[in-house]
Amino acid sequence: MIGIGIIGYGYWGPNLVRNFAETPGSKVVAVSDLRQERLRLAGLRYPGTKLTTVHEELIMDPRVDAVAIATPVSTHFDLAMGALRAGKHVLVEKPLTASSEQAKRLIEESQRRKLVLMVDHTFVYTGAVRKIRELVIQGELGDIYYYDSVRVNLGLFQHDVNVVWDLAVHDLAIMDYVLPERPKAVSAAGISHIPGNPENIAYMTLFFDGNLIGHIHVNWLAPVKLRSTLIGGSRKMILYDDLEPSEKVKVYDKGVMVDMNGESIYQMLIGYRTGDMWAPRLDHTEALRTEATHFVECVEESKRPITDGEAGLRVVRVLESATESMKVKGRLIEL
Amino acid sequence: MIGIGIIGYGYWGPNLVRNFAETPGSKVVAVSDLRQERLRLAGLRYPGTKLTTVHEELIMDPRVDAVAIATPVSTHFDLAMGALRAGKHVLVEKPLTASSEQAKRLIEESQRRKLVLMVDHTFVYTGAVRKIRELVIQGELGDIYYYDSVRVNLGLFQHDVNVVWDLAVHDLAIMDYVLPERPKAVSAAGISHIPGNPENIAYMTLFFDGNLIGHIHVNWLAPVKLRSTLIGGSRKMILYDDLEPSEKVKVYDKGVMVDMNGESIYQMLIGYRTGDMWAPRLDHTEALRTEATHFVECVEESKRPITDGEAGLRVVRVLESATESMKVKGRLIEL
Amino acid sequence: MIGIGIIGYGYWGPNLVRNFAETPGSKVVAVSDLRQERLRLAGLRYPGTKLTTVHEELIMDPRVDAVAIATPVSTHFDLAMGALRAGKHVLVEKPLTASSEQAKRLIEESQRRKLVLMVDHTFVYTGAVRKIRELVIQGELGDIYYYDSVRVNLGLFQHDVNVVWDLAVHDLAIMDYVLPERPKAVSAAGISHIPGNPENIAYMTLFFDGNLIGHIHVNWLAPVKLRSTLIGGSRKMILYDDLEPSEKVKVYDKGVMVDMNGESIYQMLIGYRTGDMWAPRLDHTEALRTEATHFVECVEESKRPITDGEAGLRVVRVLESATESMKVKGRLIEL
Amino acid sequence: MIGIGIIGYGYWGPNLVRNFAETPGSKVVAVSDLRQERLRLAGLRYPGTKLTTVHEELIMDPRVDAVAIATPVSTHFDLAMGALRAGKHVLVEKPLTASSEQAKRLIEESQRRKLVLMVDHTFVYTGAVRKIRELVIQGELGDIYYYDSVRVNLGLFQHDVNVVWDLAVHDLAIMDYVLPERPKAVSAAGISHIPGNPENIAYMTLFFDGNLIGHIHVNWLAPVKLRSTLIGGSRKMILYDDLEPSEKVKVYDKGVMVDMNGESIYQMLIGYRTGDMWAPRLDHTEALRTEATHFVECVEESKRPITDGEAGLRVVRVLESATESMKVKGRLIEL
Repeated sequence: MIGIGIIGYGYWGPNLVRNFAETPGSKVVAVSDLRQERLRLAGLRYPGTKLTTVHEELIMDPRVDAVAIATPVSTHFDLAMGALRAGKHVLVEKPLTASSEQAKRLIEESQRRKLVLMVDHTFVYTGAVRKIRELVIQGELGDIYYYDSVRVNLGLFQHDVNVVWDLAVHDLAIMDYVLPERPKAVSAAGISHIPGNPENIAYMTLFFDGNLIGHIHVNWLAPVKLRSTLIGGSRKMILYDDLEPSEKVKVYDKGVMVDMNGESIYQMLIGYRTGDMWAPRLDHTEALRTEATHFVECVEESKRPITDGEAGLRVVRVLESATESMKVKGRLIEL
Repeated sequence: MIGIGIIGYGYWGPNLVRNFAETPGSKVVAVSDLRQERLRLAGLRYPGTKLTTVHEELIMDPRVDAVAIATPVSTHFDLAMGALRAGKHVLVEKPLTASSEQAKRLIEESQRRKLVLMVDHTFVYTGAVRKIRELVIQGELGDIYYYDSVRVNLGLFQHDVNVVWDLAVHDLAIMDYVLPERPKAVSAAGISHIPGNPENIAYMTLFFDGNLIGHIHVNWLAPVKLRSTLIGGSRKMILYDDLEPSEKVKVYDKGVMVDMNGESIYQMLIGYRTGDMWAPRLDHTEALRTEATHFVECVEESKRPITDGEAGLRVVRVLESATESMKVKGRLIEL
Repeated sequence: MIGIGIIGYGYWGPNLVRNFAETPGSKVVAVSDLRQERLRLAGLRYPGTKLTTVHEELIMDPRVDAVAIATPVSTHFDLAMGALRAGKHVLVEKPLTASSEQAKRLIEESQRRKLVLMVDHTFVYTGAVRKIRELVIQGELGDIYYYDSVRVNLGLFQHDVNVVWDLAVHDLAIMDYVLPERPKAVSAAGISHIPGNPENIAYMTLFFDGNLIGHIHVNWLAPVKLRSTLIGGSRKMILYDDLEPSEKVKVYDKGVMVDMNGESIYQMLIGYRTGDMWAPRLDHTEALRTEATHFVECVEESKRPITDGEAGLRVVRVLESATESMKVKGRLIEL
Repeated sequence: MIGIGIIGYGYWGPNLVRNFAETPGSKVVAVSDLRQERLRLAGLRYPGTKLTTVHEELIMDPRVDAVAIATPVSTHFDLAMGALRAGKHVLVEKPLTASSEQAKRLIEESQRRKLVLMVDHTFVYTGAVRKIRELVIQGELGDIYYYDSVRVNLGLFQHDVNVVWDLAVHDLAIMDYVLPERPKAVSAAGISHIPGNPENIAYMTLFFDGNLIGHIHVNWLAPVKLRSTLIGGSRKMILYDDLEPSEKVKVYDKGVMVDMNGESIYQMLIGYRTGDMWAPRLDHTEALRTEATHFVECVEESKRPITDGEAGLRVVRVLESATESMKVKGRLIEL
């Protein structure tokens, strides 16, 4: 039975507590938050849990085997490093850290101490994204041509991070999981419409070797909520709409057929193939439940998590470079 | 009564013929096409029309006051210049020319001869786009913050122009008409998935002075058809979906309210406003009918068309620069 | 080569002329209409066709082997009977006749003379409906539990027939084709909102032997256009939305599983099955082309059409009974 | 401060407890349920609340001023009558009772004792339904022509009541609140697809005096979830889609214009009007919060609730008659 301590009981922390409380193999030992009223709430729901405003107390508690961190990103590094140094396994909310330098140091520390370092890329554990990865791996899509995502809605404006760190992080985490290649360069353009605030709308293009291109549109100032991803392949194509109540993943047997038997390029014939559409049944287990179970398993069996520190680092590196690129009107940054 | 000659009776030409035939004030005098079978078809539908495979015959016909050109873009310049030199008014299918240099020369020629030069930016004449411009001009949206368009579907791949010249031309024409400012620079990224063919997917970012950003996503290789534009303003926002059968333009009374009365930026409060949504009734007149009527009026009254040569030039200049930018992975090109 | 004469060149007639003109095996010999300006239009498009305001001339023309009738329903019987008596095969627009008595007499006449009598139940020839029938016949759906259709929009109000004869006729024709059973009784409720006009909104329930129920909602006074059918079966269920641009037929692998192994009814367990959704590729051939080809084949090979006189009669009988039922607030009428 | 006792802590009870616990003016004093494990859950969340498996103890508790009942419908009458006789105000989950006779007796008892009797017609307290009523009352729709509702999805099959009592009750409650007239007769058709179980699909037609017709389609065995209502009026029409995340109520300025100035009915001209569509901003307060506040106010000020016993009775009477009508294939039952 793994004892879990959760730091941060704001928006996301209660979900972590609930899931670790209900996952076989783990139990919630302690919760810390700077705000007394949040701790009181935690106490009402989970009587018997240690509650503290001092996170060091949680980290040092010998019953705590692993620490889950759900605090603002600027505090991730210090908290995670403190936990690792105390010999605790760590799960950190996305994005892993505020810089790639910090992420590297956490990875090194966790490796040195043979501790699990996992980043909470929640979408990776949804039934929809796992199904998409399965289809990609099985070759159902053929060669992947593009990955295009739109993630927009009205609010919430954040003061400390731009829209890329808040929203595009989800898309980058999904791409990191489902695509067969890693981006080699990034270009991003964004703008802030509220003086003194970070960018609230951004467009990011990801360049890969070969035939693949990636693009992410994020916007805090849109009149409608959209969560829509197109993935094009040489054999099939996917429309993944996270707002669809049931058919989130649609697989289209559509494509282009090129007949190259002409003598010159001008005799090349392009035909279109339009076949069935298919929406596979998805596992509806709560993503965080699947993720908590995976974390517990990694701790117990000293396994490397799917969303390990390296995955967290790769995502942070793109966020960092995109932010840099936005400052210079989309200049290409090599990754 | 203005006599019209139409060059090119392929996909778009029949629409031009039909509309000029039915517009009061104009009549179709002649049609030319290189293909006899196309001319035969024109003859069946419009008996009494002069039919010729030699476009010079059409241009020189004294009954022809104005020439409408619906041929591949590479031929626009020569045909339009020939018509202008023969003293004819000219309407050219979009994009106006294959280069901004050509567009400038057509403008000069038309000005010297005091002839009407108009480009067929059809969307500008739809009820939807005219309503959007009206709302922008009246200040309903407040300051414009962004213009974001997605125009994707499967096929048709073109051999001679890339997807930007084929699809983004529509968005650029609409932006040129509805936005209060002109783009100052462009960055574009694209890729070709069929060897030897031009780019079939592209992302274009448009930079303006001040607070406005523009973005266009075009794709010939998408599993679904999308024609969706978001326009954000400080007061209201628009979702323009051209595939909606009736409510194509939705106006959202949504936005962000900033309360700056704090002493420092950290005390600034951001609130969200969510009000009514409203889909105004749109004029359903066929766009090309409105456009043909406008062309006839410009010819008769020596007026400057809404989509004049300058509008055509501005759009071609962006297309040209975007194509250049795509060759160098999105490098910023000043306009 | 079958010579076709078309009576009625209003809304639907031109579609018949175009399709028979382009279908191999048939040619359009003559067109009749009471209105000279409609005939002029027909002549412009199809020079060489005999044009007449006197339908008897068309029927008696020896080059006419078969007559297609696209006139108001009140005239169907006289025109069709006249054609049959002149030894011509007949295709009649839906509904076949204004009464079941008339339909029976046409069937008898055609059988006596060994002539083809076919009713233009156009939807039966669409790719969507043919696919649905295929799925039903193959047992994909299991036992059919219900057929529910909604067909509503604003306008066009008709003066001579109620909304059931105008719109529900489509659903009845489709049900007649795809369902394994025939309705045994009908109940309908409707109302007219414009004094002196027939019912503009109606609800019709169809009773079958066994487990199946049918229902049709038609309305000329709805704010939105809907063309949506649910077909429930013991194994799978269909959503057929004719307004979907591409995925018109969606097959859901959903259902109820009953475990009867309890000792009493109260121990019966009901489980739910939710599997994949699948939208099969559909044949996009124009329905009327498929239908014209079928008619020509039936004439040439003396075959019985899919939508023969009997199918027309069955549909008219339900329309007749539903109209009767509406007069007495939904009283059940046996068929 | 009104002391509330809640009987039944199953699916709906916890929502009642939470809302009365958080509504100013009321506090939750006691909760009863037959199942110990449900009481334990209630105790964890609301320490200090009296918990009992014996509902009489709750009813008799002098701190309990009002009783809220969220148990199966077959138990509503006895529990509510017991509470009224003990001098307590009562809120009963919908439907009020299992028969109109029972409803009448509860009304009499509550009137005799001057106690509040309210039925939990939750939808009546949603922002959407309150806005619709407001539009109807203000005459925005003109004369109401029809009310058409579809409420279908897969599951949950119930053993004790048919689909009408489970789902149509919502529509009847809404109609009772928003329509200017009461139904005079009802006809319903339904079928059971699982032997020994009540009807799982049903169609109900409601007849009114004058121009209005109502219709409800409910189905436990549909492949998709639909919650869609059309309300047609002489001036405007509404589409109310409860599954829309934000624009649940759309008001269409569409309609028919009749020009009666002809000399006979045949010269009557029908025109169509298509204007703007408008989706008003809705109050997003949780319906049950609004309802709890209203109940407390009615108790404190001895006011008659919007959804009083009479409203509950009217709905039960239609449910009862519809169930009777289904047994005889839709025979019309006067109300």
